[in-house]
Amino acid sequence: MQRSAIKRKINIVIFGTDTVPGKTFDIALIYMILLSVFVVILGSVSWIEEGWGDWVLGLEWFFTIVFTIEYFLRIYATPKRWAYIFSFYGVVDLLSVLPMYLSLFFSGASYLLIIRVLRVLRIFRVLKLARYLSEANILVRSMMMSRRKILIFFSAVLVLAVVFGSLMFIVEGPEHGFTSIPKSVYWTIVTITTVGYGDITPQTVLGQIIASVAMLTGYSIIAVPTGILTAELAAEIQRERNQFVCKKCDKVGHEHDAKHCRNCGAIL
Amino acid sequence: MQRSAIKRKINIVIFGTDTVPGKTFDIALIYMILLSVFVVILGSVSWIEEGWGDWVLGLEWFFTIVFTIEYFLRIYATPKRWAYIFSFYGVVDLLSVLPMYLSLFFSGASYLLIIRVLRVLRIFRVLKLARYLSEANILVRSMMMSRRKILIFFSAVLVLAVVFGSLMFIVEGPEHGFTSIPKSVYWTIVTITTVGYGDITPQTVLGQIIASVAMLTGYSIIAVPTGILTAELAAEIQRERNQFVCKKCDKVGHEHDAKHCRNCGAIL
Amino acid sequence: MQRSAIKRKINIVIFGTDTVPGKTFDIALIYMILLSVFVVILGSVSWIEEGWGDWVLGLEWFFTIVFTIEYFLRIYATPKRWAYIFSFYGVVDLLSVLPMYLSLFFSGASYLLIIRVLRVLRIFRVLKLARYLSEANILVRSMMMSRRKILIFFSAVLVLAVVFGSLMFIVEGPEHGFTSIPKSVYWTIVTITTVGYGDITPQTVLGQIIASVAMLTGYSIIAVPTGILTAELAAEIQRERNQFVCKKCDKVGHEHDAKHCRNCGAIL
Amino acid sequence: MQRSAIKRKINIVIFGTDTVPGKTFDIALIYMILLSVFVVILGSVSWIEEGWGDWVLGLEWFFTIVFTIEYFLRIYATPKRWAYIFSFYGVVDLLSVLPMYLSLFFSGASYLLIIRVLRVLRIFRVLKLARYLSEANILVRSMMMSRRKILIFFSAVLVLAVVFGSLMFIVEGPEHGFTSIPKSVYWTIVTITTVGYGDITPQTVLGQIIASVAMLTGYSIIAVPTGILTAELAAEIQRERNQFVCKKCDKVGHEHDAKHCRNCGAIL
Repeated sequence: MQRSAIKRKINIVIFGTDTVPGKTFDIALIYMILLSVFVVILGSVSWIEEGWGDWVLGLEWFFTIVFTIEYFLRIYATPKRWAYIFSFYGVVDLLSVLPMYLSLFFSGASYLLIIRVLRVLRIFRVLKLARYLSEANILVRSMMMSRRKILIFFSAVLVLAVVFGSLMFIVEGPEHGFTSIPKSVYWTIVTITTVGYGDITPQTVLGQIIASVAMLTGYSIIAVPTGILTAELAAEIQRERNQFVCKKCDKVGHEHDAKHCRNCGAIL
Repeated sequence: MQRSAIKRKINIVIFGTDTVPGKTFDIALIYMILLSVFVVILGSVSWIEEGWGDWVLGLEWFFTIVFTIEYFLRIYATPKRWAYIFSFYGVVDLLSVLPMYLSLFFSGASYLLIIRVLRVLRIFRVLKLARYLSEANILVRSMMMSRRKILIFFSAVLVLAVVFGSLMFIVEGPEHGFTSIPKSVYWTIVTITTVGYGDITPQTVLGQIIASVAMLTGYSIIAVPTGILTAELAAEIQRERNQFVCKKCDKVGHEHDAKHCRNCGAIL
Repeated sequence: MQRSAIKRKINIVIFGTDTVPGKTFDIALIYMILLSVFVVILGSVSWIEEGWGDWVLGLEWFFTIVFTIEYFLRIYATPKRWAYIFSFYGVVDLLSVLPMYLSLFFSGASYLLIIRVLRVLRIFRVLKLARYLSEANILVRSMMMSRRKILIFFSAVLVLAVVFGSLMFIVEGPEHGFTSIPKSVYWTIVTITTVGYGDITPQTVLGQIIASVAMLTGYSIIAVPTGILTAELAAEIQRERNQFVCKKCDKVGHEHDAKHCRNCGAIL
Repeated sequence: MQRSAIKRKINIVIFGTDTVPGKTFDIALIYMILLSVFVVILGSVSWIEEGWGDWVLGLEWFFTIVFTIEYFLRIYATPKRWAYIFSFYGVVDLLSVLPMYLSLFFSGASYLLIIRVLRVLRIFRVLKLARYLSEANILVRSMMMSRRKILIFFSAVLVLAVVFGSLMFIVEGPEHGFTSIPKSVYWTIVTITTVGYGDITPQTVLGQIIASVAMLTGYSIIAVPTGILTAELAAEIQRERNQFVCKKCDKVGHEHDAKHCRNCGAIL
């Protein structure tokens, strides 16, 4: 067998998702990724670390070496080498093994292995069923359509956070936990997003009035991104529906799961 | 009276909802279920347990025996015996009496009786009024239509929670309460869903910045499930409206409570 | 002047909103109500109570006597006496003076005067401008349309709260603050609604997992009432728009603020 | 060069955004504003204040003097002097330098410089790209359309807050942190908006029941502003789409990014 033939074969197995070996490889890979993420998570729990530390370390090295081999095979097999290396997945693939090697020199770096969880995004490539992609496409397209509105909205929220934060810093001051403007801005974000930890709370009457206004503001403006996305999503769903065209009478607007044209009855 | 006649009669009373005795039985049953749930809840309050412990125990045994008899009558009367036993309600009916008998051997098991509350779902069968069902149908159908979008959304939230959780574990570390990655993931879920207990809070500046990003993310992505459901629901309501067809002129799109066709005036 | 003439005059002033004296009376009344509520609120602050206690008491008696006179005048002037007394406003009018007289016998009753704030709802009667009413009508009608869906939703939330609450009571137990099932149900409501006080928090790993599920549930199902109301509201707005009919060509669907028919150009 | 010519030139540079110098000036100005806000924020952090206090003070005076000169140039160059001085930006421009001069007499006033952040709103003038404006326009117009509904909603929330707050004050009382009605109203707002700091929490059973009702109310009514805005926004997007008219066949309703008429195929 020639070299290029081997390359092509590896390419089909590793990158492909249409053939049986390609699909099997991808599914096996995803289970390994999930397992390796699970090991990293478990390894952070102190009593597991103490009792089974060697097992955890062994498994982490095992996964790291397997993923390193996979990484080099990908580089070897792909025709567009540099395109892969600098692609999103290429960078994630590298970052998901690098911390383990770094941990030989710097302790603690091994926790960065958690970046492997991003590799799980590949799952969507395996589930390359037309329906899942079209669903995700609608979501993504709606977000793209509304990205400018969302951007304006977030600028407004940040300006609000700085203004409210500074106000609270002046009104409450360091003695009530608002030790600096950055900390006050952090408090404002905690309040406007309605998270409300309660680690810092206003103590003065004026501070509580300003806080109330901030809360009501946050409670109301949550309507803005929801409204934007919903309106775009509704339009997007409508648009997708209009793409179901009857071949006989050219009528559009059929339901997602319609089987007959609603105008002439022809099978779609 | 023959055996099969008794069986049929029991069947009509216990399973039926259309006849007067069937309806009466179901309503009485629901009141008993609610009462028994109430007794279990009260029995968990320490001063009631201490003062009226015998009464509570007596009532719990009374309800358990009544429900056990009902359970066996159902098995006896139904024509499709195994279908009932392994149906959702069959399992719930069994589970709602079992813990009491188990409590003879294991203390504490009696609190599991709370599973009886699930039996209250039967209430919807009694309220078998066309309108309630059509309302619930719209809700359920909208959720079914959007289940794939919701699934993608929840996968994304979980990946986010793992990534943010691990980041916070590295940044804040065990000395600020982030004792392990699972605990950090728990904190991230508390933060992203904007619950914000405040039992664990970031203490470092970098941790507070990451937390702010997590909050704003959670505050924004709440728009996604809302948007999905709303868009589907609106389409669903539209679709239902289109099913009100005028018998005279075949015009669709009438209001839910319309009495005359909006096109030709014929009574619907 | 005859007795019935006086009665009619009082009726016009007190109940009417179309004449100048009627409108003036209503606006003056609303200011007095707001002022009296303000006095009750201020009277609850301890340092105001201590320093200006006599003033607060004097003002409260002043408002109470004025409102008592107004109440009897209303009873005197209205033609349908009993209908008024048992109407929503009739009951509120009585309840808004009663606590002050009760406070002669029971201390603390005077705080119930806060019920006066409900009288402010009259403000909508004064603002009887067609537009405000139509806006409120749309809101109310949308809520009425979606009340059955909302009811089903709330039943589901309550069942969820009881199930999660009981689970947490068994898992966490009294030693972590979950002292009884009612208290656990309270905690579940605090969690599902994403309020998250943090006065009770899960301490065990299993408890934190269940809590995470409860949070994600709460975070998702908030989409349900929003979706229901939005869909109904959109339909309601559409319906209202369809009521703007052009008198010349019978075309419907004009904008709220349109001046010309969009079909034939005739002035609406 | 004549005086009026200088004036015109300054006017073009400072107020204009269409010419190259005008645009350059505006962008430079925005960077300076952001930088000056950043300096004020940093200056509030105690260890920066202690270590680099002189630098911070120097930079603040530098920005203040530059903005003062800019302010007087604006007054000098604008043809409608008083209109500018009392315009929104005129007042903001003055307020963004004033606190620094006041800080010579009153310590602490310099933190008010944070008002400069409002000047950043000018960024929208620079980004005077048709698309951004049209996006912002849709948002603003939807809010204007729904302002009456939002107003009714907020009145209802405030009445609710006063009623629930007073109830909790009576039920819980000063011994559980509800020291006065204003403080109880503050607690109610914290609860209804689902912020939930946890600095004040109900301790009695009745208080927890009322709190649960308040939470569920808050959790539900968040649907109202979202529903209002979404419905208006959807109508607004629809309306905007209808403004894309084909010049050849007068067909409306084209997509935002459509290039050909969907009816006759003519280029739009």
